[in-house]
Amino acid sequence: MELTLDGSTVRGGRQARERFYDSRGYGRVVDGDLALAPVEAAHILYRGDIEAIRDADSGDRLDFRDLLSSDLVSEIDVLVYKDLRDRGFYLSPTDEAGVDFLVYPRGNGPWDDTVAYRVRAIGERTDVPARSLGEVVLAVVDEESAITYLDTERPDIGGSTRVDPPRDVPGDLLEDRVLVWDPPTALYERGFYGQPLGEDGAPLQLSLLEAAFLAGRGVLTIDERTLLERGREVEGDRFDRRLAVYRALRDRNVVPKTGYKFGADFRTYADVEHVDELGHSELLVRVLPADHAFSPRDLALDVRLAHGVRKRMVFALVGDDIEWLSVTRLTP
Amino acid sequence: MELTLDGSTVRGGRQARERFYDSRGYGRVVDGDLALAPVEAAHILYRGDIEAIRDADSGDRLDFRDLLSSDLVSEIDVLVYKDLRDRGFYLSPTDEAGVDFLVYPRGNGPWDDTVAYRVRAIGERTDVPARSLGEVVLAVVDEESAITYLDTERPDIGGSTRVDPPRDVPGDLLEDRVLVWDPPTALYERGFYGQPLGEDGAPLQLSLLEAAFLAGRGVLTIDERTLLERGREVEGDRFDRRLAVYRALRDRNVVPKTGYKFGADFRTYADVEHVDELGHSELLVRVLPADHAFSPRDLALDVRLAHGVRKRMVFALVGDDIEWLSVTRLTP
Repeated sequence: MELTLDGSTVRGGRQARERFYDSRGYGRVVDGDLALAPVEAAHILYRGDIEAIRDADSGDRLDFRDLLSSDLVSEIDVLVYKDLRDRGFYLSPTDEAGVDFLVYPRGNGPWDDTVAYRVRAIGERTDVPARSLGEVVLAVVDEESAITYLDTERPDIGGSTRVDPPRDVPGDLLEDRVLVWDPPTALYERGFYGQPLGEDGAPLQLSLLEAAFLAGRGVLTIDERTLLERGREVEGDRFDRRLAVYRALRDRNVVPKTGYKFGADFRTYADVEHVDELGHSELLVRVLPADHAFSPRDLALDVRLAHGVRKRMVFALVGDDIEWLSVTRLTP
Repeated sequence: MELTLDGSTVRGGRQARERFYDSRGYGRVVDGDLALAPVEAAHILYRGDIEAIRDADSGDRLDFRDLLSSDLVSEIDVLVYKDLRDRGFYLSPTDEAGVDFLVYPRGNGPWDDTVAYRVRAIGERTDVPARSLGEVVLAVVDEESAITYLDTERPDIGGSTRVDPPRDVPGDLLEDRVLVWDPPTALYERGFYGQPLGEDGAPLQLSLLEAAFLAGRGVLTIDERTLLERGREVEGDRFDRRLAVYRALRDRNVVPKTGYKFGADFRTYADVEHVDELGHSELLVRVLPADHAFSPRDLALDVRLAHGVRKRMVFALVGDDIEWLSVTRLTP
């Protein structure tokens, strides 16, 4: 049985089709014969099922090492293909935009219609545009050839925290926060706005974000514009992006609190009734401009940390609208 | 009893000295009388021990709110001072460069000579030059006024992993790694270089860093310069910095492996005898240029993650030499 390299396709006859496609899910069928992508042929060579393939142009015989050193196949694709095969999956290369492999559920193969994962294979040094994520699993090959899978989704964000704080509350703008000396109790206790300085609940310290939001809603008497200017002084454009996300979360009845201790912009509480009965915060939110490109290493750091503190990592991509992107570790 | 604001010092008489310095560790003694920094006076006012102080210039009476809104004291300093007092410490403002407060061991005070912590108080938006760290505790006040303490040290880094791999081993340079098709077993098993692709240990995949290091030592036959060029192509200057740190760690008999999964440059193993008996990796190392300034948020992320995986976070600051800086969470 011979496999022949024809341009960038590796071809085999009926017998090869039976052996590799029918019983082991490699390649696709063209006129009853077998057609393989180079990455599939590389795996067959790696396993030693075939010693070498014949290059139709030059007549040379290519083994695994030759194929891997050629431009026909990327080492990243070969490593991810092998890893998924080792995990018991059949998978096929695809032309779908932003996707390298369609991975079938265990027990299924290219002759079935169901897809378990759409996988994009990348090296750890390849930046990933945030906008290209949401319905794809990233398989990141690190510099030492270990592979991490990251599932990306576009989640709905929502909660049940409704609070209607009183209006026209005065406060003092300090350098980087606002102090409310005589705070209405609903502000902190029901809305989870701010942080009391003393044990008696006063004064209440509001962050610039909380203060700008509350001033915009008429709750604080401090001029909203003054707060926006101060915020931009200390944070630049980032302040506006964070405020947009803060507003969007409050509009969805979710309470954002600072995520500083987790290196994020916010941690969030979906269902606050009273601060004395706070549950575990569910999400870590990082605010990014919509055209952001992730370094896989930064992504790994965020996702790992969120996982370690039993929260879900969500990115808020701020452009004309806000898009939500969640990224979680996956073990296929 | 009256306290008087005189320039930027708050002064009291002998009775005030007895009450505040002798029995409660506020301020210092000048000619038998009491001298307080504004942050100390602010704490006394906050506690209500004194209602207001008198401004010697204007004759005005200033309460806690007035003092906090003035330029005499930063809210950051007030919050950190209060927090450390609440934790049972006496502390004094200091002129020492890069330090805001000397914190005495519990039970000691300004009349003693021992110092438990040198504390620098900063807001979460203040960048911190890496070079300024090493013998100071950072007290970071986040935007919602919670405080995190980070202890910084200059650790010695060393281990006991000694391996003398054979020379002149050939390999293939692929896009982003090197494959050694017939690897000497000591390379992986004793030196923990690379990652085998197959279960029989071959081929051995080396990262560009490992390959460049080994080529420089004559272990690989691939030209060192070719590897350096490839590394710079994919990582720029960062590759040279990382290689310098890789070399420094190997020279100290410590094994660096990729820290990708932890969002770091390296995780390290101090004492490798055989890869089958690997212990837990001890350090996470992030490589930075020596003139780097940390955003406290990034620092919080790194330190939190390292803590969560029971490793110590170490920064390698690369200038003419390599300086090591460790940062850990502290609960004073």
